[in-house]
Amino acid sequence: MKTRVLLGIDIGGTNTKLAAISARGKVVAHDMILTLAKEGPESLFTRIQQVVPSLLGPRREIAAAGLGCAGLVDAGSGRLCSSPNLPEWANTPISRICKRVLGVYTYVDNDANAAAYGEYRCGCGVGARMFICITLGTGVGGGIVSDGKILRGSHNYAGEIGHMTISEKGPRCKCGNRGCLEAFVSADALVRDATRILRRAGRSLLGMPAAKKSRVLTPEDIATAARRGDKAAQEVFDNAAQHVGIAAASLVNVLNPDRIGLAGGVASGFDLMEKRIGQVVAERAFFESAKVVTIRQAQLGFNAATIGAALMAKDALRKTPHQTPSR
Amino acid sequence: MKTRVLLGIDIGGTNTKLAAISARGKVVAHDMILTLAKEGPESLFTRIQQVVPSLLGPRREIAAAGLGCAGLVDAGSGRLCSSPNLPEWANTPISRICKRVLGVYTYVDNDANAAAYGEYRCGCGVGARMFICITLGTGVGGGIVSDGKILRGSHNYAGEIGHMTISEKGPRCKCGNRGCLEAFVSADALVRDATRILRRAGRSLLGMPAAKKSRVLTPEDIATAARRGDKAAQEVFDNAAQHVGIAAASLVNVLNPDRIGLAGGVASGFDLMEKRIGQVVAERAFFESAKVVTIRQAQLGFNAATIGAALMAKDALRKTPHQTPSR
Repeated sequence: MKTRVLLGIDIGGTNTKLAAISARGKVVAHDMILTLAKEGPESLFTRIQQVVPSLLGPRREIAAAGLGCAGLVDAGSGRLCSSPNLPEWANTPISRICKRVLGVYTYVDNDANAAAYGEYRCGCGVGARMFICITLGTGVGGGIVSDGKILRGSHNYAGEIGHMTISEKGPRCKCGNRGCLEAFVSADALVRDATRILRRAGRSLLGMPAAKKSRVLTPEDIATAARRGDKAAQEVFDNAAQHVGIAAASLVNVLNPDRIGLAGGVASGFDLMEKRIGQVVAERAFFESAKVVTIRQAQLGFNAATIGAALMAKDALRKTPHQTPSR
Repeated sequence: MKTRVLLGIDIGGTNTKLAAISARGKVVAHDMILTLAKEGPESLFTRIQQVVPSLLGPRREIAAAGLGCAGLVDAGSGRLCSSPNLPEWANTPISRICKRVLGVYTYVDNDANAAAYGEYRCGCGVGARMFICITLGTGVGGGIVSDGKILRGSHNYAGEIGHMTISEKGPRCKCGNRGCLEAFVSADALVRDATRILRRAGRSLLGMPAAKKSRVLTPEDIATAARRGDKAAQEVFDNAAQHVGIAAASLVNVLNPDRIGLAGGVASGFDLMEKRIGQVVAERAFFESAKVVTIRQAQLGFNAATIGAALMAKDALRKTPHQTPSR
């Protein structure tokens, strides 16, 4: 008899990550393919179907599939409503297509929710009563897990933590608003700050590979330079920590989390930000609420959303056990 | 046989409101006594006990009591942890004391949570899946009702919406933070703004009773002047609406509410703020999330917290039907 595993799928604008996940959330095998969004979801799931046998090997089969998808997802109907990263897929019944092609029960949710749920179940959020996961990547997203369940809001759009205003007249954000957290601490914002400081300080940021202009600067490069003692690079992370701290303090006051997780490329500099973030939260949030929160670096990295989506599928299947493949 | 009613009690720093509430949340009778916090909770509940017979009349009896209390409340144990308005009562097992004195099942929660629940059950929040109630009073508080339940966070401290940072370097707030919503839109902040504009504009704010300096200016006075066409008073409410809108937009992005209710004295100028708040939310929040939210004036006024606390007590009693009076 074959071992049944969950298939976790994390669909991004460029790449789609696949992972075979055990019932306990362990990654058994993983792979990545191009999303090729313009070819449509049928094409993607057909290519996934082709990859699955080599991903699973001869002794495993899929019990259910969990999809994390960038954009606004109606988790109830499994429809992708809209997505800035997958504009061609707006209003697609993505769960139904996946079910038909792969022949298994499929659950779909927003990728940030899936990543938050993964961290909650198997990473830095284990055991938290109110867990907030903030992903500091190209954009800044988030997911909230309250009493073990994703906090969805009225239409499953909740969790856009990157778009809290922290500075009324702050810099313009891609979303159209001003002074969003994302406008201060996305990977792009950090690189912009580093470049500006580099220009201003001239000889600063020495030791940073990207200062050679041989390739694109990343938050990881800036973090490496900061750890080597580069003052300008440290200033970039100090600024980021200040702004993450302000947003975290607001979240602490409004949602009273006992754990906040920081994920994404910018969180690779967690060691450079941890102390300052804690200070800002202590300064800005209510004493009692600040006292009960711990802020941690996310643990699952690359596979947070595949793990979370797979476990969501497992949970959903348990609630509706009579789901059958719709092929 | 006597009709059983719920006793709703809203304990503030100065006054304590009492109301006999029907099972459907209707106020049957209400009264107000001084809290006299320094005399302690035993004294307050003894005086409540003395008032109850005249409040109920000969044909009613209390089924359960619900307390809304300013401060941080552990709703599970019924303990008041700390309260800026009732400093002498820190760490008081307030539910146990009420039970002993009144001889009925007692449920205690934070007053802002109680008011939010009241509005959710019987006021402007009826039917909402994610309801946020913001009380714009001397302070700015709030409560969040998600899928019919108060969103408590890890330790029941959630809902401090007044202390979201909306402007990183904004004015100092009483809580110690900078640029909190409360620092911009509390009743005190409005009066301060009106006074400043009055000083600057000289002849402006004509028609406002308080311009005569015969009594303390209130948000209601400023609203009355604004409705009479006073430009300076309108400017005060425009500014308030701008800042409420910024906070609401952040909440819309993070929590995806379908309804936001505005309560408290400053919300008496809701008609003056409604349009601008809607514009700011539309400008600043995600289109899809902004589209599904409606912002309304609270409906229960004075008795929101007594109604909400009473209905919370009823709900809690239904879940633990074997509760007996602990006298």
